[in-house]
Amino acid sequence: MLRPSFEEFQAQRADFVSQEEKRALGADIVLTEDELKVNEFLMKLKNAELEVGLKTPFEFVPARHLFHVLDKIKNCPLFKLLQKMPKGAILHAHDTAIGSMETIIKATYQDFLWQHGDFDRASPPLYKFSKTQPASIDDTEWRPVADIRKELGDEGYDHNLRTIFTLFNKDPVAAYPSINTIWSKFADMFCSLEPIVTYKPVWEKYFLNTLEELYWDNVSYLEFRGVLPPVYDLDGRVYTAEEIVQIYYDISENFKKTHPDFIGVKFIYAPHRIVNDEVFDGYLEIAENLHKKFPTFVAGFDLVGQEDLGRPLSDYSERLLKMTPSIQFFFHAGETNWWGKTDENLVDAILLGTKRIGHGFAAIKHPRVLEEIKKRNICIELNPLSNQVLKLVDDCRNHVGAFYFSDSYPVVVSSDDPAFWCASPLTHDFYIAFLGLSSARQDLRLLKKLALNSIEYSAMSRAEKVEAKHKWNIAWNSFIDRTMQSL
Amino acid sequence: MLRPSFEEFQAQRADFVSQEEKRALGADIVLTEDELKVNEFLMKLKNAELEVGLKTPFEFVPARHLFHVLDKIKNCPLFKLLQKMPKGAILHAHDTAIGSMETIIKATYQDFLWQHGDFDRASPPLYKFSKTQPASIDDTEWRPVADIRKELGDEGYDHNLRTIFTLFNKDPVAAYPSINTIWSKFADMFCSLEPIVTYKPVWEKYFLNTLEELYWDNVSYLEFRGVLPPVYDLDGRVYTAEEIVQIYYDISENFKKTHPDFIGVKFIYAPHRIVNDEVFDGYLEIAENLHKKFPTFVAGFDLVGQEDLGRPLSDYSERLLKMTPSIQFFFHAGETNWWGKTDENLVDAILLGTKRIGHGFAAIKHPRVLEEIKKRNICIELNPLSNQVLKLVDDCRNHVGAFYFSDSYPVVVSSDDPAFWCASPLTHDFYIAFLGLSSARQDLRLLKKLALNSIEYSAMSRAEKVEAKHKWNIAWNSFIDRTMQSL
Repeated sequence: MLRPSFEEFQAQRADFVSQEEKRALGADIVLTEDELKVNEFLMKLKNAELEVGLKTPFEFVPARHLFHVLDKIKNCPLFKLLQKMPKGAILHAHDTAIGSMETIIKATYQDFLWQHGDFDRASPPLYKFSKTQPASIDDTEWRPVADIRKELGDEGYDHNLRTIFTLFNKDPVAAYPSINTIWSKFADMFCSLEPIVTYKPVWEKYFLNTLEELYWDNVSYLEFRGVLPPVYDLDGRVYTAEEIVQIYYDISENFKKTHPDFIGVKFIYAPHRIVNDEVFDGYLEIAENLHKKFPTFVAGFDLVGQEDLGRPLSDYSERLLKMTPSIQFFFHAGETNWWGKTDENLVDAILLGTKRIGHGFAAIKHPRVLEEIKKRNICIELNPLSNQVLKLVDDCRNHVGAFYFSDSYPVVVSSDDPAFWCASPLTHDFYIAFLGLSSARQDLRLLKKLALNSIEYSAMSRAEKVEAKHKWNIAWNSFIDRTMQSL
Repeated sequence: MLRPSFEEFQAQRADFVSQEEKRALGADIVLTEDELKVNEFLMKLKNAELEVGLKTPFEFVPARHLFHVLDKIKNCPLFKLLQKMPKGAILHAHDTAIGSMETIIKATYQDFLWQHGDFDRASPPLYKFSKTQPASIDDTEWRPVADIRKELGDEGYDHNLRTIFTLFNKDPVAAYPSINTIWSKFADMFCSLEPIVTYKPVWEKYFLNTLEELYWDNVSYLEFRGVLPPVYDLDGRVYTAEEIVQIYYDISENFKKTHPDFIGVKFIYAPHRIVNDEVFDGYLEIAENLHKKFPTFVAGFDLVGQEDLGRPLSDYSERLLKMTPSIQFFFHAGETNWWGKTDENLVDAILLGTKRIGHGFAAIKHPRVLEEIKKRNICIELNPLSNQVLKLVDDCRNHVGAFYFSDSYPVVVSSDDPAFWCASPLTHDFYIAFLGLSSARQDLRLLKKLALNSIEYSAMSRAEKVEAKHKWNIAWNSFIDRTMQSL
């Protein structure tokens, strides 16, 4: 074999690198002159962090567990810039885990809240709003939260709540030795938290605050999953699924009026996957009713809960195929490290015609799935920090999103349950994606592409998308202008 | 959109899964009836471990750090079966890190060994064989190892050696917070160990023992990298590179005579990548001389050392292109978590015409690299446990090898420096690859394919390969027979 000359080699190399750059996500975006200047600033910030990382890898944030670097991220100039950036939409997040837990904590100052059990037990306390003392359980009485609050002091009480209502832990590896341990704490949290947040006044306040926080984080559209838990009030009334969705709808519409640059909200009904067929049939009925009553606000159907322990999609496929064809699917699939087991939900999701895939973490092990994702243009909703906290991946540079970014797969970056790990609604995930999941060569074009993708792959109608892009464009141009002026 | 009927869906699903199965590594192997029976037994063992893992993920060995599961692996029936299996060749491993450290420890009982510095310092002690006391360094005298051994007792002394001559640590995460920390200990180990192993009587003994241990681990061919450090004797003679290779050659030839079913050995000259141009020119001269003197035993050229901190291949490409065209390259490339930095060695390696790629961990982020690997049939030498211990990946189920296995990339499983992490020459990596990197559906066909690949992608000539396959076939059939009889 003859070797090429050095000149030939250099030309081949330049060509090779350029071919790869052209295939990377965002490479099709052409930046304006102003954007190029902002890009220069952005890349200065990105390169500074990469240089530190190359010298002292331990200091590189995406390689560390989020809980060890929360403060560091908050103070980092790149994070601050990304927070100001209009990021478009969150397409994958869950009802009671997007808005900050501080709303829930504040809610515990309200009257009529009762607590069952202490903070120092293995299981967290139970809560309930009620005019009168709820019936005792296991011979233990419910106590007014106000009384316990007096004993522990506000600071002490709130500290306890923060411990049970988030997954935060100073030593996450020791606290959560396996994926099942952390999902178990996850389930406990929901249980304990649910009767606080489903109290109607809190429910409304929490959802409104969620939208406020999105807005503040420069996210202007939300497509969120919800289980529609039984919302209740002090008069003993329990609201139906349709009534709860109506609450979501009304608050969203009001929010759009008070925030005209906000694009809007859609809801995906996503009940638990670990149920028997009868309960599942009840879900399908709710889904059909919601589809009839809210044909545009309710975007479709999904299932939630730990995929590894839940029933696989194939268990439900016969029933799912009978649903009204205009109901769209947005299935979680492949949120797992297993191969040849739970991950086969990916195959079912695709063949059931899913519009998007939640996580798609395991799709990398499925060459046909990867092909179909491109061919059918199925968007993968990446949630890098969720996958780290819930123990699918350690160093975010190994996150599968890097593979998708390298070859322009249809993806968005989302955040899943950011409040549970003390992250902002979307910026933390954008920060990790931009710094840890992307090439040192990837720049503002990637970020712009991700924002545009979040509109493109939403469940909005064509007309809605035109309006959404218009609103986003105004916000984006204003961001570019303001950043330019600050340089 | 109309949904398919359940029957249509089931047919589509079966077809989809079958298409993926056909693309997986090893799917082209057709098993004999006897092999099918052994396969059944093998899959029973694999499934048992998977079932435990699904229930209690913390117990799943490939998801844990090797140092926490060394004992567990040793006692596991699947491991024992894989150890008996003829695995073909090791195509990626380093001179003084394949054979067990016990050989080095035994060598410290020999006369004329001196030690400089104590065990309790930040830097490990220095060693040297010498008839007389070596000259003092920093006013500190060298002491006979025999004297220190008497003070500490054999057990205490050997325990200290095991600590400095392996990376083993009960708490690896705390001990090695970053990739640079562990590579720094790695470098210290080589420094401290080198003057023991390069003492000619030890050098010969160590290499012979390495071959014995390979043989015992059912590995029958070795293609190993070496830096050719200055081997010396008590008369003050320092051996040249060619003389050292001659020692390797003679021992290998003798070993083949005493072990007629052993296939053989080839050597890849692989000096350090972190040197200046002058030193590098010296390396190239040695490589040219070795190629002339040992045209078949010396398979080619590579560079070693931490890629992130070393000079990139592009620094050397002009010089490398001038080398005699018949000298083959076997470059380490992409042994990194970075993207758009060190990993671009992959591009250089391919365009320089590398025959194989060491690690290729980062290739997953390079769509053109992935295409060229298939097009040019460049074999990726996977070393899953090395990548875990040296902190590229945590849970081996996230190892890039899974991607390669899913779509029949040209790969082999190898072991890099198994002695440094107390692993067997190859079986530990096969065990992790089979259990953690492969699908629950992948079976004996994958293992057989990996063994066959290790011959196919070796640097052997066509004639040598025919003989190698013949020898391996005999061993394989005997393994199948013996396993059948034990069922």
